[in-house]
Amino acid sequence: MIETIHQSVQVTFRYPVCFTEGLFRTNNPLLKDAVCGHAQEDTPRRIVCVIDRGVVRHHPGLVASVKEYCRHHGASLELAGPPLIVDGGEDAKNHPSYVTRIHRAVESLGVDRHSYVVAVGGGAVIDMVGYAAATAHRGVRLIRVPTTVLSQNDAAVGVKNSVNAFGKKNFLGTFAPPHAVLNDYRFLTTLSDRDWTGGISEAIKVALLKDAEFLAFIEAHAGDLVRRDMRAMRWLIYRCAELHLDHIATSGDPFESGSSRPLDFGHWAAHKLEHLSGYTLGHGEAVAIGLALDSTYSYLVGLLGEHDWRRILGLLSRLNLPTHAPELGAHLHDRADVRCVLNGLDEFREHLGGELTVTLLRKVGEGIEVHEIDERKVVESISLLGEYQTSLLTGRTA
Amino acid sequence: MIETIHQSVQVTFRYPVCFTEGLFRTNNPLLKDAVCGHAQEDTPRRIVCVIDRGVVRHHPGLVASVKEYCRHHGASLELAGPPLIVDGGEDAKNHPSYVTRIHRAVESLGVDRHSYVVAVGGGAVIDMVGYAAATAHRGVRLIRVPTTVLSQNDAAVGVKNSVNAFGKKNFLGTFAPPHAVLNDYRFLTTLSDRDWTGGISEAIKVALLKDAEFLAFIEAHAGDLVRRDMRAMRWLIYRCAELHLDHIATSGDPFESGSSRPLDFGHWAAHKLEHLSGYTLGHGEAVAIGLALDSTYSYLVGLLGEHDWRRILGLLSRLNLPTHAPELGAHLHDRADVRCVLNGLDEFREHLGGELTVTLLRKVGEGIEVHEIDERKVVESISLLGEYQTSLLTGRTA
Repeated sequence: MIETIHQSVQVTFRYPVCFTEGLFRTNNPLLKDAVCGHAQEDTPRRIVCVIDRGVVRHHPGLVASVKEYCRHHGASLELAGPPLIVDGGEDAKNHPSYVTRIHRAVESLGVDRHSYVVAVGGGAVIDMVGYAAATAHRGVRLIRVPTTVLSQNDAAVGVKNSVNAFGKKNFLGTFAPPHAVLNDYRFLTTLSDRDWTGGISEAIKVALLKDAEFLAFIEAHAGDLVRRDMRAMRWLIYRCAELHLDHIATSGDPFESGSSRPLDFGHWAAHKLEHLSGYTLGHGEAVAIGLALDSTYSYLVGLLGEHDWRRILGLLSRLNLPTHAPELGAHLHDRADVRCVLNGLDEFREHLGGELTVTLLRKVGEGIEVHEIDERKVVESISLLGEYQTSLLTGRTA
Repeated sequence: MIETIHQSVQVTFRYPVCFTEGLFRTNNPLLKDAVCGHAQEDTPRRIVCVIDRGVVRHHPGLVASVKEYCRHHGASLELAGPPLIVDGGEDAKNHPSYVTRIHRAVESLGVDRHSYVVAVGGGAVIDMVGYAAATAHRGVRLIRVPTTVLSQNDAAVGVKNSVNAFGKKNFLGTFAPPHAVLNDYRFLTTLSDRDWTGGISEAIKVALLKDAEFLAFIEAHAGDLVRRDMRAMRWLIYRCAELHLDHIATSGDPFESGSSRPLDFGHWAAHKLEHLSGYTLGHGEAVAIGLALDSTYSYLVGLLGEHDWRRILGLLSRLNLPTHAPELGAHLHDRADVRCVLNGLDEFREHLGGELTVTLLRKVGEGIEVHEIDERKVVESISLLGEYQTSLLTGRTA
């Protein structure tokens, strides 16, 4: 005899994604309002601030500004302790001690589920702090202040967090929407050229999948973007964030319980390449190569026309984004070698769970999901990309 | 200039809570169906099974049955590795190595987000395994097989998981609904009398808050329950689980973003007492004392009538549930002493976050939330409970 109660639980998460300049200027109300709403509170809300060391290096006055901001808005905000400074980049996600350090701070500073952890930094720091915040007290409130193109237009606007473990990227993590995302364009001014352009690859990705007009904008402003024109970059980030947010809200599977991951176009190879390069390739650069590879594959299997394929490679090149890396080819003919990029397909399937689902391109602005990948065609794509790169170096068309 | 995108993400979680007998008998389809639905799958789904050592001790054939069940249903299920055996009780939640061990198993056994972790055990094991499963790959699917009264009627039916850290109960955890909850009454037959009756206190709690008729049922069957009548216990568990599930689905705040926690009646003291006793008091016993204390407080501040107050204490006593413990009084007059039970109020507020919100009783079947607790009245309540206990021991009415 079996009795069953069918449980159904609906949860609605709401959060603002704001774009500003000078977040920690005392006359900018954004952070204070994100913490308190517009209501008057009896007691100030407690804040723990975690900042990316790289951001502090480029903005030496930042820690003082954060303290001054909280002092100025002392009726609303209270720094529970001095800001924690953590290493940026993949190191943030590779060392479990950072997560423990944030947990310990939450514990010892009496931070509760109505207090805030404010994470200031690149995507890796935001991911790591998000994981720590989501697991302390079953979730203290997280305010993300992403400081790179990549994190402002992609990594920090969504509902995921993670750290690496057992040598696997993002092995530990949860789905936990933030309380607010506050993008401050001023942080972008000190990015290296590499980080500035690296983040553009996620915008190209989402444009290729969803918005041909947006791709045309990026093409039209490729020169401006390379020259670090802030107006072009602001629109690029805003539109890219908007497309990502719209996808999460309307895809029907925001916590990714199925095997489909349409926004992960180009990402199976990207994840593997990052790892194989020992993270000397940035995520944005690896994604650029992944986009080049899967676009080329789409072209070779007859899905994508040649004109669109050339447009994509051309755009990546004009933005100084890579379309090839030594890691692509070195171990390509020995699938048993874990360093073989093709193993990224299995790892991608395992991380998604269930059936392999890879997004390819049908045309600019339209993706298509497939469940089988012909490895010989991948090898062929890599070799074609190699020829393309050689032609760029020698100035001839492939 | 500030631009804002207002993001809204809706997530619906569905899971069955099933009641059966003999879950691992090969002719019981429940587990197989929970994993595969009724669809035919090409490849069997992978399962990692984690079992409470105490359950294995009382059911020596269990590991063999689990293996045999998976072999029999090999087209649907595949054990990814031998079942992991972990300590039960609070030890499961106190040792971070267990969480790491499960993460490592998920990693090394190639368990993906469409695979299953099956947790068999008491509430502590379910909580700990749930935390490990929720954080690996951002959530592998969890099937809970609770084996105690307490876990079947309360701990294992909800949307939370946790482990202890920094000496604080449930400091780490997430909100993560399970894939299915499979209650097998046969596991109850080997419980100690203490664990059998201990779990009844959560049923009394939810009856006091929400269902006077259910309280009358428990009163009418108190003798049957003490004599371990399985029919009475089955209904008690079913109804208690149903009331808990209904609350989670309809409260409007399933992931507890507010400060209100109406089902935590009696729990501020219970959590503290468990900790103060070094977990020699079981959770159910501590809840019984917490119910007695907050009912007495409700009576002394004029919310609850004397008749209802006496009914509650009388019922707890008839079920051999405690209404007093030495930990209640020992450090009562020194609030600076962390061993003072009154500090449980602050810790409760901190864990909920925001304003202190404590549920009291207005009458049997109806709770009421208050935001201030008069500590002198708590002290008075404890002393009245002490007198009540003395009167029980000496056979006189308080």
